[in-house]
Amino acid sequence: SSIFKEVVLTSERYRVQRLPFSHVSDSDVAFFERIMPGRVITSPEDLKPYNVDWLKSVRGCSKLMLKPQTTAEVSQVLRYCYERNLAVNPQGGNTGLVGGSVPVFDEIILSTVLMNQIISFDKVSGILVCQAGCILEKLNEYLEEQGFIMPLDLGAKGSCHIGGNVATNAGGLRLLRYGSLRGTVLGLEVVLADGSALDCLTSLRKDNTGYDLKQLFIGSEGTLGFITAVSILCPQKPKAVNLAFLGCQSFAGVLETFTTCRAMLGEILSAFEFMDEKCMELVERHLKLSSPVTGSPFYVLIETSGSSSTHDEEKLNNFIEQTMTSGLVTSGTVATDETKIKASTWFIWISLIQTLWSLRERITEALTHDGYVYKYDISLPVGKLYDLVTDTRAWLGQSAKNIVGYGHLGDGNLHLNITAESYSHSLLDAIESFVYEWTARYNGSISAEHGLGFKKKQFIWYSKSCEAVFLMQRFKAMLDPKGILNPYKTLPSS
Amino acid sequence: SSIFKEVVLTSERYRVQRLPFSHVSDSDVAFFERIMPGRVITSPEDLKPYNVDWLKSVRGCSKLMLKPQTTAEVSQVLRYCYERNLAVNPQGGNTGLVGGSVPVFDEIILSTVLMNQIISFDKVSGILVCQAGCILEKLNEYLEEQGFIMPLDLGAKGSCHIGGNVATNAGGLRLLRYGSLRGTVLGLEVVLADGSALDCLTSLRKDNTGYDLKQLFIGSEGTLGFITAVSILCPQKPKAVNLAFLGCQSFAGVLETFTTCRAMLGEILSAFEFMDEKCMELVERHLKLSSPVTGSPFYVLIETSGSSSTHDEEKLNNFIEQTMTSGLVTSGTVATDETKIKASTWFIWISLIQTLWSLRERITEALTHDGYVYKYDISLPVGKLYDLVTDTRAWLGQSAKNIVGYGHLGDGNLHLNITAESYSHSLLDAIESFVYEWTARYNGSISAEHGLGFKKKQFIWYSKSCEAVFLMQRFKAMLDPKGILNPYKTLPSS
Repeated sequence: SSIFKEVVLTSERYRVQRLPFSHVSDSDVAFFERIMPGRVITSPEDLKPYNVDWLKSVRGCSKLMLKPQTTAEVSQVLRYCYERNLAVNPQGGNTGLVGGSVPVFDEIILSTVLMNQIISFDKVSGILVCQAGCILEKLNEYLEEQGFIMPLDLGAKGSCHIGGNVATNAGGLRLLRYGSLRGTVLGLEVVLADGSALDCLTSLRKDNTGYDLKQLFIGSEGTLGFITAVSILCPQKPKAVNLAFLGCQSFAGVLETFTTCRAMLGEILSAFEFMDEKCMELVERHLKLSSPVTGSPFYVLIETSGSSSTHDEEKLNNFIEQTMTSGLVTSGTVATDETKIKASTWFIWISLIQTLWSLRERITEALTHDGYVYKYDISLPVGKLYDLVTDTRAWLGQSAKNIVGYGHLGDGNLHLNITAESYSHSLLDAIESFVYEWTARYNGSISAEHGLGFKKKQFIWYSKSCEAVFLMQRFKAMLDPKGILNPYKTLPSS
Repeated sequence: SSIFKEVVLTSERYRVQRLPFSHVSDSDVAFFERIMPGRVITSPEDLKPYNVDWLKSVRGCSKLMLKPQTTAEVSQVLRYCYERNLAVNPQGGNTGLVGGSVPVFDEIILSTVLMNQIISFDKVSGILVCQAGCILEKLNEYLEEQGFIMPLDLGAKGSCHIGGNVATNAGGLRLLRYGSLRGTVLGLEVVLADGSALDCLTSLRKDNTGYDLKQLFIGSEGTLGFITAVSILCPQKPKAVNLAFLGCQSFAGVLETFTTCRAMLGEILSAFEFMDEKCMELVERHLKLSSPVTGSPFYVLIETSGSSSTHDEEKLNNFIEQTMTSGLVTSGTVATDETKIKASTWFIWISLIQTLWSLRERITEALTHDGYVYKYDISLPVGKLYDLVTDTRAWLGQSAKNIVGYGHLGDGNLHLNITAESYSHSLLDAIESFVYEWTARYNGSISAEHGLGFKKKQFIWYSKSCEAVFLMQRFKAMLDPKGILNPYKTLPSS
């Protein structure tokens, strides 16, 4: 627990003022104890991990955490908080990267941790309905048993909650294939700031009766409502999954590999991830992973998912042969059904698959071992993607420890990460003015998938017009007039 | 033009009252003539086709149509109308089926017909940016030349505008494969009721900076803003497209064929449409089309799109062999690359493709030749889909002429159509109370893809809760406080 204490209070580091919400009183605690006995946490020790984010970069000082099990309980809590003017911090798996999931001051933590029931699954349509606190990986395991998968996958899958995924419009590794949550989420149940429940939990693939209200809550980071249940369209589990991990000599080569890949793999391409050699170095150094492919400045991880292993392997082999012959790809390894047969045991083959994915998925973790991490999650036209890394290196020179670039190339999404021995205000300023202005110059987004949360909200102007931000503020004022839901987050103070 | 006169005025047929908007004066017309000379239509003869919907089921009496070319002009028009309290009817290709695209009274018709410029297309990302008045088919032709296609396709493609498609959240034939417009539309430019322009015209696959405002305008049928430009993600043109047109002996057989099809064709399945024998009869009788497959109570049209004709044909042939052997499918024809080779000329093969698609796509047209058409566009759990047709036949008995069912089975979307010699209030009442209550009982949607427009708005309650409709009304009041944008549409009067 010592690590939690070391994290500087958000309010001190960022010099923010508490808004005039009420303070939690003993009678408030007594009220909550009555409606959810045994699920009211007030012990400072127990509260610690929920006051600090996964990156250990922000820390609040909430004195109360509530664990409702039902939508009715969430309604009761919010109705009470609204009347009492108590601020509330909705929390899922607390895996957010922009300080959106922890309190800034003493907001009440309203957690989905006990809202983890699967409500229904229809095997014909592939539609899953579940409570917001279901863990992504658990849902995926449940679906795999029935021949389906979740339409999203991300590094934090072992802890993140589906409600949090929807509230932050999580992207992740399968977006290239199955599209964004705006298409796959079919329905939501949401409790509004005043405690009223909004039932949009439809399980239909198509429904054009009036405005699509649920969209407003997707990606609103808990500032407009508390998501209690989700209806989501799940694809069939692919019969064949193949992986290729390849080395390229330049970023131009990575781009050409992508274009070739899309043309040759077409509908079976399910992921196209890239990482630079610095990422590989950090994963090897801090996590002791070793890569079967080495010696290249760039690496790409290509996944195919399809319904015929014979067809898919043929496509993948043709692609690899062509890119190897043309010199586009200089080294690589594959994990296909064929290698599965050659592997002496099933275990060796599974390890290969997991190793290849780990090299990409555990970069975030490796970075946290390298020091304080300044994280940027940028959308750009795909051709400009890596220039930002190169230019940032030139700009910062020796003032940073390591500067790495990786991400979802297929979606035009770069994760630019900068490490330093410790947090520094001046380094932060030097990075942000540069990175955000650069991004705005090329019409990029300063947050592709992580959201704005607490740490990025004041930078919304780099990606959105004044008119758009003003309209967002009007929506917020309409749905949460007292501003009790996740205050200090997403929108700049007006 | 005689047909236009025969259509009863909407206000008379449905007994609605005009709201107290201002009436268009000579000085208003003079103002518009100054800002867009030569693009202001006031001749009653020229206005006729824009006052009547494609189905000839509703008719307004607008005396003024404006044809802006730029967003700035749309802004000027709306700012003026807002100040003068003049009602406005946004209009695209006027192909809507629920009376949403024509005026009810004398609303000014604001048309996108001259806003037909392509702004940009990026071949690496597949992102198209264009003005709202581009015709869907034209866009698709433009993209095909560059190796891409539009992510949506529908029967009205030759006339409908992309702005109208987005405003109505059009579904259509490719939704099964490429998902809904909520996922593929990346950005919008919208002019609000007061004339202010809202620029959300981003061209990024991912952008999580604040609330996704554009979603509110998708499917809002021109009641919240006037869409002036669209940014949309377009898939690569498939290298191989195959069709199969099959006969099934029962609807249970159709469902089993669908399940088998999804398992065996997987990622290459791009359409699964069904129609009953009544549809086939009407298409043959009224349009003189003849089907190569006959004698079955149900027909399905299956399309595959993929990157390898060899692989795709193998999958399709395996599927057909299995369903034929098991007796699931009793007759059928295919149009694949193999049949292309066997066809004596390219023309014969293309004709076969077109004939097969026409049988499905021209059902709407065939129905209009059968009499007055009562159209229902229902979402249901796929297993219940056809029961509604059977039950409606039993309910109506001899009071209807023909009752047919067809639609996008893969999306759980039934088009239930009932024809009669002419419009009748009592028949309408008999149908609607039955069909909508039946649909609500099975948690379906009373409008899967057509929207609510004028004709269905009072039935929103069958598919949406009071809380949801109330919230929609608050959004409308916030964005269009005078209610000038497409009045009498989408939302029930409060």
